[in-house]
Parts: sequence; C-alpha cells; structure tokens
Amino acid sequence: MNCEILNVGTELLLGDILNTNAQFLSQELAKLGIGVQYVNTVGDNKDRLKRSITNALEHSDMVITTGGLGPTADDITKEVCSEVFGLELELHQESLENMKAYFNRFNHPMPLTNEKQAYIPKGAIVFKNKFGTAPGCVIEKDKKLIIMLPGPPRELVPMFNDHVNPFLQKFSNSIIVSHRVRTFGIGESALAEKVSNLLDNSNPTVAPYAKDGEALLRVTAKAETKEEAEKMITPIIDNLYSQFGSLIYGVDYENIEQKLVELLAQKNMTISIAESCTGGYTSKRITDISGASGVFECGIISYSNRIKNQVLNVSEDILKKYSAISGPVAVEMAKGALNLSGASIAIGITGIAGPNSDETGSPVGLSFIALTDGKSAWVKKLEIGRNGQRDYNRYVTGSHAFNMARMYLEGQIDELGLERIDF
Amino acid sequence: MNCEILNVGTELLLGDILNTNAQFLSQELAKLGIGVQYVNTVGDNKDRLKRSITNALEHSDMVITTGGLGPTADDITKEVCSEVFGLELELHQESLENMKAYFNRFNHPMPLTNEKQAYIPKGAIVFKNKFGTAPGCVIEKDKKLIIMLPGPPRELVPMFNDHVNPFLQKFSNSIIVSHRVRTFGIGESALAEKVSNLLDNSNPTVAPYAKDGEALLRVTAKAETKEEAEKMITPIIDNLYSQFGSLIYGVDYENIEQKLVELLAQKNMTISIAESCTGGYTSKRITDISGASGVFECGIISYSNRIKNQVLNVSEDILKKYSAISGPVAVEMAKGALNLSGASIAIGITGIAGPNSDETGSPVGLSFIALTDGKSAWVKKLEIGRNGQRDYNRYVTGSHAFNMARMYLEGQIDELGLERIDF
Repeated sequence: MNCEILNVGTELLLGDILNTNAQFLSQELAKLGIGVQYVNTVGDNKDRLKRSITNALEHSDMVITTGGLGPTADDITKEVCSEVFGLELELHQESLENMKAYFNRFNHPMPLTNEKQAYIPKGAIVFKNKFGTAPGCVIEKDKKLIIMLPGPPRELVPMFNDHVNPFLQKFSNSIIVSHRVRTFGIGESALAEKVSNLLDNSNPTVAPYAKDGEALLRVTAKAETKEEAEKMITPIIDNLYSQFGSLIYGVDYENIEQKLVELLAQKNMTISIAESCTGGYTSKRITDISGASGVFECGIISYSNRIKNQVLNVSEDILKKYSAISGPVAVEMAKGALNLSGASIAIGITGIAGPNSDETGSPVGLSFIALTDGKSAWVKKLEIGRNGQRDYNRYVTGSHAFNMARMYLEGQIDELGLERIDF
Repeated sequence: MNCEILNVGTELLLGDILNTNAQFLSQELAKLGIGVQYVNTVGDNKDRLKRSITNALEHSDMVITTGGLGPTADDITKEVCSEVFGLELELHQESLENMKAYFNRFNHPMPLTNEKQAYIPKGAIVFKNKFGTAPGCVIEKDKKLIIMLPGPPRELVPMFNDHVNPFLQKFSNSIIVSHRVRTFGIGESALAEKVSNLLDNSNPTVAPYAKDGEALLRVTAKAETKEEAEKMITPIIDNLYSQFGSLIYGVDYENIEQKLVELLAQKNMTISIAESCTGGYTSKRITDISGASGVFECGIISYSNRIKNQVLNVSEDILKKYSAISGPVAVEMAKGALNLSGASIAIGITGIAGPNSDETGSPVGLSFIALTDGKSAWVKKLEIGRNGQRDYNRYVTGSHAFNMARMYLEGQIDELGLERIDF
C-alpha cells in the first residue's frame, strides 16, 4: 500500500501558510507501514487539482488530500474528487447538525455559507470534525482511495487520530519501525564518518540527519510485525551506545528538553532558569513539555542590568567589572535563580542573540551559560557565530544549557571539560 | 515565467523534517511575480527523482530543488539533474577552497566525504554557501532552468537572498504584490461573510485565511509595476479599515507582537510580563522581535504559588481566596511585574494550558489575563477550550494579552468591554 499526500490551497503556494500537515501525515503513515513516495501541493484551481489527483491515482493506491473543504467558493476539493470518481454530492444531515451544534457552542448562528460543507460525495464514509466545521471523508473506486481532510492542523490532527488511523490499519501489511538516536555535541559529518560502515545497510537502514544544531541517526527496519522490526534494530542501537556513550542523550526523544524534564522527574529534582539573551525561549521550551510543572520552579527573564541586580542579586560590581555578557554574570544569575526559587539546580544564560551587537561590541552569537547546584558552578562559553540568525542562536544556546543540566543529572558533567567553580 | 519547487529528501517523506523551505521559496517567488503552480516532495530515490524532475520541466519553465546536496551517498540531486540535462560533474576548485575554509573556522579538518560536494555540473553558475558546505548552482538547457539549493534552511535562506534572488530578477515580467490585512477578535467565517462582495474580484483578489487563532485578509494585485499594483490595492485596504476599524491591527505584520513592540517603541514605553500557564512563551514572543530589548523590561515565569507570592508579591490571602487561576491573581501578578520592573505597563497571565486540569478542576484552556498601567487594570477571562492543544492554548492566550496591550496603547482598550478596576 502506498500513498500520495496532496495538499490543496493557493495559500500554500503563496507561502502564506507553513505546511505542517505533510509532516504529521508522513510520520503517521510511516508508522502504519504505508509508504509515502510523493507529497504534492497544488492551488485552488480546478484543472490543476484534477490533473494532480488523476496523476496521483496512477501511481499510488491512496491519495490523502488536505484543505479545500472550507465554506468559500474557492474550496473545491470535494467537488473535484467527486468528479474524478463520477460521484454526486449530497447533503449529509448529520454533518449539518454537527456544524450547527459547533456554532451553538460559541453562541454564534451558523453562517449560511457553511452549509456547503455538509455536502458529501455519495457513498462516502464521513469523518466527524470535533474542532471545526468541515467533515472529512473517504471515497473508494476500483480499489483506489481518496481521503479528504480539512486543512487547519488543529482539525486535521484529531480527525486523523480518531478516525483515519483506525480506518487505515486494515490496509497495512508490513510495518516500518523507525527509531531516532539523538546525540548532542557531535556534528552530522563527523557522526556520518564514524558510522560510515552502517550507512549502506539496506534493512535496517541507518541515516544521519542534522536538526536544530544537533545530529541524529535514524535507524529504520521493515518487517511483518513490530516485534520483528524491533529485534532487527536493537543490536544496532546497542552498538551505537557503546561507540558514542554520553554523546547520545536518548532514543526517540523529541528534543533534549524532554530528556531533561524526564531526568528531573525521575530524580525528584527541580530547575529554575535565569535568562537574558534567550528571552524566555529556554523556559518556554521546558514548559512546552507536558509535566514540566512538577520540575520547573521559575524563570526570570532579566533583559536589563537593573533586573539582574534587583531580582537576581547580581552585584553591580560584577556587572561593571566583567560586563553583562560574561561567565561571572552567568554564574551569579544562576545562583540568583537558585536562591530565589529553592530549586535543586539552576541555569543562568547571558549573551547576544543578534542581529545587532551590544554597546561593548561582544560578537553576535556569543553567550555564557552557567549551571549550579549551590555547591559548584560549571560555565560554558559558547560562540555560535551565526550572524543574523537570532532564532537559531537562541535555540542552540538553550540546547547547550539543557545538555549541561542533562550531563549533571547523569553524573557526567565533568566530561564536558567546562570551567568549574566550587563555592 | 512559472516555477515548480521540488523538495528532495526521504526525511521529508518520513516526516522527520518540517518543510519550511517550500514556504520561504513560495513567498519569495510570489514577490518576484514568478508563479508557483506545484510544490512537490520526493525521496532520495534516483528513478522517482528523475521522473519528478522530468515531469516538472514539462509544465514549468524552472525547477528549484532543495536538498540532496550533502556529502553522503544518498545525496543525489546534482547527479540526477546533470543526467537529465546531459551534463558531467566536475570539480569546482573555488567551492573546495570555501569548504576547507569553512571547516577551518571551526578548527576541524574537512572530512574526506565532503569533497563530493565540490563537484558541480559543467557550465553551472555556482552559488556560494556562507553557512554550510554545499554550494548551490543553476543549470540551463533549452530555456529551462534547474536551480539547486541546499536543504538546511539556515543555508538555503541566505543563499537565496544573496544570489538566487538577484539572478531571478531578470526573468520577472509582471509583479504580484500582496498585502495581508491582519485582524484580531473576529473569526474567519464572519470576516468572509462581511467581505463577501469582494471575494469574487479577480484583480486585485481578496481572500480570507485563518492563522494561529486570527483571521486575515490577503489582498493581491498583479500588474506590470509595483507602483501600479499598489495603486490597485490601496482603495481596498482603505475600505477594509473603514469597515472593521480597530479589529484591524495592521497590514503586513508578521504577528500581533510585532505590532505591539512597534507601538511601545513609538511611544517610548516599556512592558513587563508575569506569566504562569504560558511558561515563558509570551515573553519569548516579545523577545523574538528584533528591537525588543528597548521595550521589554523583564519576564517572570511563576509556575508555583510560592514564586507568585515571593517574587511578584501576590498575597497568600488572594491566592487562597480566589485560587491561582483567577482574575484577582492575574491582576496582582501584573501589578507585581510592574512594581518589580518599573515598566510602563505589565501583563499578568494565569491559567491552565493543559493537557490536564489542576487540583481545583479548572477547565483546560481557561485563563485570566490582566493588563495594568499602575492606575487601572483590565481583566479578560478567556475560555479557549481546546482540550489537549497545549501549544495552541498557550499561543492564543498570549495573543489576547498582546491585543489588550495594543488596544491600550492605541487608546481603545475600553472598546473590548473588559472588566476594569481603577486603583
């Protein structure tokens, strides 16, 4: 069984919207062992949409469309798909009722234009939309399937999980299992070179990727059952662990902050963060993780020296002597956050995210990160040097802070070779 | 001149990577008046890649590929494109030197595998990569162009801006100008219904979109010159302003926080934020904006009641009497942030982002937002009610806070009909 994803919407071709649906669907289909060979995007144009659907059906068993189910005249996905399969649209009473109930919840009468969304190709299986008005549906002809899903991710994702995934399970005959071995502190090329003997494997495959300043290895096996695939993957991951040790922070974590929150919870410890250049991004990433409230005490975003001094108790002498972008200030910020919150460990971050330098002329991408447990502090000087890449600089700075905390909690922080100050 | 974007990479088909390149390129090509009719993604598979390139060249004047220029054996974009055009690859000495210099900057010797990246189709124009190792290039045959760009966005974006954009300008004969009229506080359907008379226009076009809890109208004109296109758009935007008033927060802003930072800077005012459920996300969004350091005083992320009390001075009585998720606590948090930082205005946010409720049983997506200038406070009770959509809840909560501050700075906050407390 293979599938083509066809994203419909002129707004995608104009770049107004970032296509997150393609990624989500690709991930979910991979888990089901349904191969995605093409992901295409086409505008709200009848001829081109029809051509894309017809083409897709030629070389794929199934087409999943996203978008074009809205209430306006340029929403034509159902109309064109029905035409391709020679089906008529008919009013689906249940969907109309759902839609009216949806508007009722927000105390709005249903706009008349929305009624169009309740017209469904004859014979379709309908998927209810819990978070919006457009129902999804699937139509079948000559063993080919078209699954139509709404465009907004907050509607598409739950609809896929609740209805489409169970529907698709019966079409899945082989299983693809993929695990991501996540590393911190080694580049993609260096990683690829060290595992070059594995890169030509055909099943399981091992492939290196760079992502957000980290390198990771994806290990993928195809087998008849999940158990069999896992059995093929395990020895490879074991070998990677013996080769790379603490450079690997885990398998299948979304990111290093997820690992950190898990470690803190396991050890019944808490963290606080004082950050300047990262401006809340580091705290935000910790609190992105569901369950962070159990391990996160507080965050202080101290842009100005006044807040560093007044809230975090960084002395004016130290600020003057070393300047705000310095190791000693990062240490004092971390200590300040620790003392203020009573957390087990605290991070202090100060630096220049860019795009412009500060009055002292520190280079963009320079930062100092300190970690303290109240007894010692470890300081990292980081020069990312990505001029004009503010978001990247802020992200990678936070990741280094998380890695320091991760290594501390695993009892390995001294392996990082950082400056260490014992109080 | 029209174009197909062809993203190459099995990691995209597996959903390991979010395709941000397609959005960026679409936006840039639209500005150049180069129509994008298809955006396709194909894996690192020679036959399918060749088929996709050949197809694309059939109905487009130009193909822009992303990815597949890396050092490893599965990177085959240059090889396949050269084959399609009947060109040989040859060593490009300058690219090799650049690559060695790139590794030198990081004090690494160049891994041997990278040399492959310096082989370029014969006769190609080469685009230097300032932020990575893979050079880009363009090849031409029979008036058809293939432009090959590296996959990582931090390499692709600067390469496009510095080299590809100037290269493409000579192919652009008509100009498409698009402006986005951004609103806050009205839904997409309601907005569409109110401008239904405009939706059938063919030039300029007016199209409604929903994005991140906001609705916006895109007004697009096609003309021979930029001036002409602007002249067609102006009266439409003027009409929208007279129809929607303060529901419109601006034109072509990336988001509402950008508008807020601009307003603060114009008025020489500063802001501080005390946030609980949004966990730093609100401060992060403000500090995402370049120039925020001039208007942002501090952020306090007070997850626990202890920090609310100790740092923000929210009294234990109020916390006990109203519970942490309440209007009075939001007001006290905002006052605490204002007093601590001396900012002109401050925001306090407390709520339940989900996925789980708290011990008092407050529903997920409930939050209270307060804005204060030290003399009065305005409080909004917000029920987003998106169960399990933590990120969305946190985002939209922050947006409402920004809109309150925006309306305050524009002297219109009382239009929002919020509870108002004068101290």
